[in-house]
Amino acid sequence: MITAASNSRIRRLVQLNQKPKLRREEGVFVTEGVRMFLEAPPEKLREVYVSERFLERCGCRERLEAVGYEVVADSLFAKISDTCTPQGILCVVEQQEWRMEDMLKKEAPLLLLLENIQDPGNLGTMLRTGEGAGIDGVIASPDTADLYNPKVIRSTMGSIYRVPYVRTADFGAALEALQRAGIEIHAAHLKGSRDYTCSDYTKGCAFLIGNEGNGLTEESAGRVGSHVRIPMAGQVESLNAAAASAVLLYEAARQRRETNQ
Amino acid sequence: MITAASNSRIRRLVQLNQKPKLRREEGVFVTEGVRMFLEAPPEKLREVYVSERFLERCGCRERLEAVGYEVVADSLFAKISDTCTPQGILCVVEQQEWRMEDMLKKEAPLLLLLENIQDPGNLGTMLRTGEGAGIDGVIASPDTADLYNPKVIRSTMGSIYRVPYVRTADFGAALEALQRAGIEIHAAHLKGSRDYTCSDYTKGCAFLIGNEGNGLTEESAGRVGSHVRIPMAGQVESLNAAAASAVLLYEAARQRRETNQ
Repeated sequence: MITAASNSRIRRLVQLNQKPKLRREEGVFVTEGVRMFLEAPPEKLREVYVSERFLERCGCRERLEAVGYEVVADSLFAKISDTCTPQGILCVVEQQEWRMEDMLKKEAPLLLLLENIQDPGNLGTMLRTGEGAGIDGVIASPDTADLYNPKVIRSTMGSIYRVPYVRTADFGAALEALQRAGIEIHAAHLKGSRDYTCSDYTKGCAFLIGNEGNGLTEESAGRVGSHVRIPMAGQVESLNAAAASAVLLYEAARQRRETNQ
Repeated sequence: MITAASNSRIRRLVQLNQKPKLRREEGVFVTEGVRMFLEAPPEKLREVYVSERFLERCGCRERLEAVGYEVVADSLFAKISDTCTPQGILCVVEQQEWRMEDMLKKEAPLLLLLENIQDPGNLGTMLRTGEGAGIDGVIASPDTADLYNPKVIRSTMGSIYRVPYVRTADFGAALEALQRAGIEIHAAHLKGSRDYTCSDYTKGCAFLIGNEGNGLTEESAGRVGSHVRIPMAGQVESLNAAAASAVLLYEAARQRRETNQ
């Protein structure tokens, strides 16, 4: 059992939660909670840490024994956890390397393209909603929040393990590559000329969502032929970025269900 | 200009941000930022505080002069602000008293019913999305998060001033009253028998959304005849509560636009 805060593994766990650079260098991220442990792809699970109390009470002992784990003193566990009320189990998981090509293998892919999304809760929720709506992947601009931020991971509720995600160094080039591959990109735009329910999303397509405060850059909006608008009643200027994504992705899912009926 | 942290008005502002009970007793809440100042209903605006720096640079001096304001030393303003990077303007606004009857005046009202929503960001986003989708009001169970929590207010992006909101002491009685008034209530339910796009939302109706972790109580779900399900691809169990609300409310808005065409 690890009992000392000075233990090198404990110090590293704390740093992995705090430092994007270290996560990148090691190619790993940290997840917390029973659900995130149980849903982690077994071949990607590198290390598991549990608190004494968790080990006494948990219902997943068999699985823990199968993968191997390390016990951490209760008092120390709070130190490595990023949450206020830690569940008592924490995993170090290998980052998956997705490629844009893999997202385009299916017929009529549905993608989400994110430009400079900053709020970790929004980013995580978008992955979760995206998986629910059946997307094939997310492509993010280089200035988008770090996917492996603990808050993002929590908000994904496990979708981080399953939704292909690429943060591209050249967002404009990625948009062009998608267009060349026959993907129609629809930019969510406040000044969009078309009600979002009036476009056809049953073919291969992608929604392009901009930054929470500033929307899309002119550069990105300019690359895209279709600008769709979510109608707003009252005095609302725009929806929250994750809410807008939910509305658009589920409209695509609705149209695709209808077409397949 | 107020310069002392011991000033009784400063102490009260800090407490108003922290204490729901004090906000209730005084019947006010605190909003921050230029936008929240400009959108506040003039007759509800009780007090306005600006930092020295804000006053020098702001473009809304005329409006400030019209309503009256108090200057707070820059160093002190950070103390009364609930945000990390305060804009430098903060208002004390009177709470509005909405009544359920007022939400039912229009033909075919569209309502959002919230049971025990806990996350402030979710609650605020729901009001914002709700206004955008054209709802007539929100009715919340007594254990729902406090509407006047600073984080909720921020997430509403101004909708808090405009969306009628009632936190009812008896949620079950409220559901029954709505049903008596001819409102069809659709519970968002993981085990719902019906795809949410297959119900008709063009008549007076309401969506019932449950707690983030536990969903609806059996009691509330049992009161409601229609249980609708948002289809989920992948391994997603449920959507985030605010994302689910966005999907449902915008499906209702879509149907209503189509009907009115």
